[in-house]
Amino acid sequence: MNSFGRIFKIEIFGESHGQQVGVVVDGCPAGIPLCEDDFNEDIQRRRSGKIGTTPRIEADIPHIVSGVFNGKTCGTPITILFDNTNTKSGDYANLVAHPRPGHADFTGKEKYHGFNDPRGGGHFSGRITLGIVAAGVIAKKIIAPVQISAELVEVGGRTDIEDCIKETMQEKDSVGGVVTCVCKNVPVGLGEPFFDSVESCISHIIFAIPAVKSIEFGSGNAAARMKGSEHNDNIVSADGKTLTNNAGGINGGITNGNDIYFRLAVKPTASIGKSQDTFNFADNKVEPLTIAGRHDACIAVRVPVIVECATAIALADLYLINK
Amino acid sequence: MNSFGRIFKIEIFGESHGQQVGVVVDGCPAGIPLCEDDFNEDIQRRRSGKIGTTPRIEADIPHIVSGVFNGKTCGTPITILFDNTNTKSGDYANLVAHPRPGHADFTGKEKYHGFNDPRGGGHFSGRITLGIVAAGVIAKKIIAPVQISAELVEVGGRTDIEDCIKETMQEKDSVGGVVTCVCKNVPVGLGEPFFDSVESCISHIIFAIPAVKSIEFGSGNAAARMKGSEHNDNIVSADGKTLTNNAGGINGGITNGNDIYFRLAVKPTASIGKSQDTFNFADNKVEPLTIAGRHDACIAVRVPVIVECATAIALADLYLINK
Amino acid sequence: MNSFGRIFKIEIFGESHGQQVGVVVDGCPAGIPLCEDDFNEDIQRRRSGKIGTTPRIEADIPHIVSGVFNGKTCGTPITILFDNTNTKSGDYANLVAHPRPGHADFTGKEKYHGFNDPRGGGHFSGRITLGIVAAGVIAKKIIAPVQISAELVEVGGRTDIEDCIKETMQEKDSVGGVVTCVCKNVPVGLGEPFFDSVESCISHIIFAIPAVKSIEFGSGNAAARMKGSEHNDNIVSADGKTLTNNAGGINGGITNGNDIYFRLAVKPTASIGKSQDTFNFADNKVEPLTIAGRHDACIAVRVPVIVECATAIALADLYLINK
Amino acid sequence: MNSFGRIFKIEIFGESHGQQVGVVVDGCPAGIPLCEDDFNEDIQRRRSGKIGTTPRIEADIPHIVSGVFNGKTCGTPITILFDNTNTKSGDYANLVAHPRPGHADFTGKEKYHGFNDPRGGGHFSGRITLGIVAAGVIAKKIIAPVQISAELVEVGGRTDIEDCIKETMQEKDSVGGVVTCVCKNVPVGLGEPFFDSVESCISHIIFAIPAVKSIEFGSGNAAARMKGSEHNDNIVSADGKTLTNNAGGINGGITNGNDIYFRLAVKPTASIGKSQDTFNFADNKVEPLTIAGRHDACIAVRVPVIVECATAIALADLYLINK
Repeated sequence: MNSFGRIFKIEIFGESHGQQVGVVVDGCPAGIPLCEDDFNEDIQRRRSGKIGTTPRIEADIPHIVSGVFNGKTCGTPITILFDNTNTKSGDYANLVAHPRPGHADFTGKEKYHGFNDPRGGGHFSGRITLGIVAAGVIAKKIIAPVQISAELVEVGGRTDIEDCIKETMQEKDSVGGVVTCVCKNVPVGLGEPFFDSVESCISHIIFAIPAVKSIEFGSGNAAARMKGSEHNDNIVSADGKTLTNNAGGINGGITNGNDIYFRLAVKPTASIGKSQDTFNFADNKVEPLTIAGRHDACIAVRVPVIVECATAIALADLYLINK
Repeated sequence: MNSFGRIFKIEIFGESHGQQVGVVVDGCPAGIPLCEDDFNEDIQRRRSGKIGTTPRIEADIPHIVSGVFNGKTCGTPITILFDNTNTKSGDYANLVAHPRPGHADFTGKEKYHGFNDPRGGGHFSGRITLGIVAAGVIAKKIIAPVQISAELVEVGGRTDIEDCIKETMQEKDSVGGVVTCVCKNVPVGLGEPFFDSVESCISHIIFAIPAVKSIEFGSGNAAARMKGSEHNDNIVSADGKTLTNNAGGINGGITNGNDIYFRLAVKPTASIGKSQDTFNFADNKVEPLTIAGRHDACIAVRVPVIVECATAIALADLYLINK
Repeated sequence: MNSFGRIFKIEIFGESHGQQVGVVVDGCPAGIPLCEDDFNEDIQRRRSGKIGTTPRIEADIPHIVSGVFNGKTCGTPITILFDNTNTKSGDYANLVAHPRPGHADFTGKEKYHGFNDPRGGGHFSGRITLGIVAAGVIAKKIIAPVQISAELVEVGGRTDIEDCIKETMQEKDSVGGVVTCVCKNVPVGLGEPFFDSVESCISHIIFAIPAVKSIEFGSGNAAARMKGSEHNDNIVSADGKTLTNNAGGINGGITNGNDIYFRLAVKPTASIGKSQDTFNFADNKVEPLTIAGRHDACIAVRVPVIVECATAIALADLYLINK
Repeated sequence: MNSFGRIFKIEIFGESHGQQVGVVVDGCPAGIPLCEDDFNEDIQRRRSGKIGTTPRIEADIPHIVSGVFNGKTCGTPITILFDNTNTKSGDYANLVAHPRPGHADFTGKEKYHGFNDPRGGGHFSGRITLGIVAAGVIAKKIIAPVQISAELVEVGGRTDIEDCIKETMQEKDSVGGVVTCVCKNVPVGLGEPFFDSVESCISHIIFAIPAVKSIEFGSGNAAARMKGSEHNDNIVSADGKTLTNNAGGINGGITNGNDIYFRLAVKPTASIGKSQDTFNFADNKVEPLTIAGRHDACIAVRVPVIVECATAIALADLYLINK
């Protein structure tokens, strides 16, 4: 459902045009310094405003309403809320009958028998990832000194990223991108063989981020074309450091002390200004759809901080289990 | 840990050279016809014997010891056991001090503080996937008429798969491959937004399969190079069928009624006959290691049936939750 | 932790003198009519104001901030918040050093290494049960036509309940009570053998209610003094109705279609006006403690509605699993 | 379902007259000495043979088939199996049509739509508690130096227990009893406020034991008749020791370092030799039933060791979570 984790457990909630979105973080150890300012940096990174992002600008001010006392976590559930203020629900009225291709309009309506909130994508909105970012800020504190950095390395197959996005916007189109993530200072021994492998847990939460289409750990797809003698990472010291890192820091599902490394593909935003043919359930036939609304031309621009935070959540859970 | 699923819940256990490996399947509906012969086809597909697979041959006869009465499932936990008979534990004695690169020898020892069973890889052995296959055979019955087919489409970057493996074996090396998987007749509405997205659940269990390095859904990596106008799958009929399937059958984490499609990279088997330099903890220095033992030259050959079964397990759980 | 349920899953949060308390309800089916007024009746029953209850009066107005659209549940997480307004934190300052006997002051401090919020009992406050009541109101709608009624049948061993409480208040003391609960129109087949027996699930959540000391199902304690020929409930019709109901509506952990019946003992409120000797960690010796603050003389008065709501939550989860 | 625990997780399986019953213990730390002899004492205590117990005698030899290597736990799932050998299935054939009152014959048939194994009670048999005992033996090692002792203190309301059982057997009847349990050397801080309170977790698993009808912690039912000034346990030293123990060692759901104490009522065995009137679904009317088979006259005799083991399992899970 909308929860993740076994010990460090988060529950996210909200709709794009509802009153509030947020997260409850359960299982956070007591005594960790935490205040509302701590969220600023990552929330700013996630916000729109940069090139290629939606003109809907939200203040995104975090309200901590439980679980923190005198500037430290209590050990009890931490609830963080964000108000939705800048909503223009009129834009989305006709999308119920004429679902946007590539979006969850059709599946949302079917799954919830038409009772889902369709305004701004409702619960399927990328806005719900604010809760993931907020939880991730806390998770990062738990797993310190682990350091996680994700970055956008490619858009539309190009590395001149800004130019590519500008051209795309002129075409009233959208474009995908590639995000890489590296985790440094990871202790040996996180994760489990099989179902709670580090790859299982990270991929589980990474695919919770809307628009992610693939994930590759270490050598990734290239592994399929390699020989064992090339792929094997020879251990060169007693702490398990290896010469190469095709494993991406994980053997048998368990961290080996080298950097965790993975990369992922983000699809182009489904909402585009260009006209598209798709089924109109009111008229019962395929008809052109032009999406007004406000949307990102390249959602991949906003993804890196969410990837970092999601990864931190997965690692925090594995770290607390391992202890 | 070693369990997966919320309603259709499996628990796998065993070590490569222990007495038995197996699985408990909890949450299987009552009244499903099930007998030991039902496992034969998929167990045969998983067994070694084909080119590129280990000379260790096991009978792999399933023993159903609970949960089935008069040829039908009871609704209670189904336990299926397999004996380990063909074990040669002597081969692996020195690997504790001199861990194989690319293998879980080092991480297993660290995680379990040296108490893990090192014989044949112990609990990290691919042999434990027998339990996944057995559970998958049951899961396939639950989700019928969904049909899942996985196949090996590439080895070492080549499609003349047998030739590539033969050459690799002559070099005492191993090689990776690509497996694709398609699920047909999938109902609309399986999965959840965010953490229990279909991609999250499938990737979680797919990365439980040893040697998998990547997973791509639908357009996968190609999405990062596409425009929205190319990537969006236009809906062409009232049941949600789309003209293209870049989504891989999933929108907003939820099945849209089109085929689920994904592909994955399998790394070359870590155990190779070729000499490799790696750290010897007994001597506290890097030294050459030659692995005798018995192993697969291309583990990817045995992966497709495990992918099918793992996918069936994930879908059976989502299917029972959705009901 | 602070969550309950497998399919109908709730997460409660908040501190007595924090900003807000509340609950997230995940897994509620879509399309159930729900508005803020629906909570009034049960919230009023839970509120103080009646004889024997604390003079701290809170408005307890529910704010639904997610999961409801156009007066119906969306199928997505429902978040309900309540403001804390009438807080007088000064009263509780010295209780950190001089923990109240019978209260969680000592265990809370130890468990959370002194970082818990001590004001008004913090997260251990009965105020957090507001979230259980709110979730229970929703659960009752799911399990309709099941009807759950709990009532206070005894206080201080007496049935002239009001008089007993008045006398207790004059003594600046508190007093315990007995609450019974009956569930009517329960379908056959809820619950599981062993760990998810109906008794297991109900007792689990009932013991989440502060001050509950015991639970008895059906014949309860009396069963220990009975013969099988007296205790067995003879089945008298094809729908499983029995002549007696010593089973309390449950056989082998599974509902048998008769009324579920249980009773529980509620201890006297730990906070009393009378002076008590207890350990003062500041002075490192036993010293008299007189508790000012505001508290209930008989917390059992407020328990029945919480018992009903908690039971509804447990049954809603079992009901959705059973489907 | 048939699993319990979040970190120390067990899964039990089997039917009374199936091939094997057993348990998988997942999440047990590595390096704990464990061999098959370790189970003997508790298995002997659980076995029949004593007065009031069934004449069905099973060897109950534990087979550890995974998770133990060189006499120590590996950290991987431990599977323990027991053969069913002494089965006489003929006895139970007619009970499908004519369900035993007080037994799960009716609810089992309804829940599993007639597909459950009815022989010897199938999965509802007390025989399945062997898995709980086996897991408990391991749990006891984890929580050492915590010591758990349960004993039968009353049968049929009398303390001359053997005499009471003998008289009951002569009447071809059965009789209930009272079991008490005390846990010594419990650390402060196990358990959580609300849903994972120690009482919630212990009662959850205790009600998984067939025939348990009630549980009282500390003062239990007596609390309902007490004043706060009597009930409060005054703290008398800096380690939290209290003068009295009405709390039963738990405040706010969390252990306070004093003994955990609880008592429970066990109903009389449902199967009795005396004739009883109950519904015959074949004839569609109430008819006398006389149960041949083999059964316990006082199942309470066998319960104490199961209570100890179940409690150890709950505490081991809370202990590992708390770490």
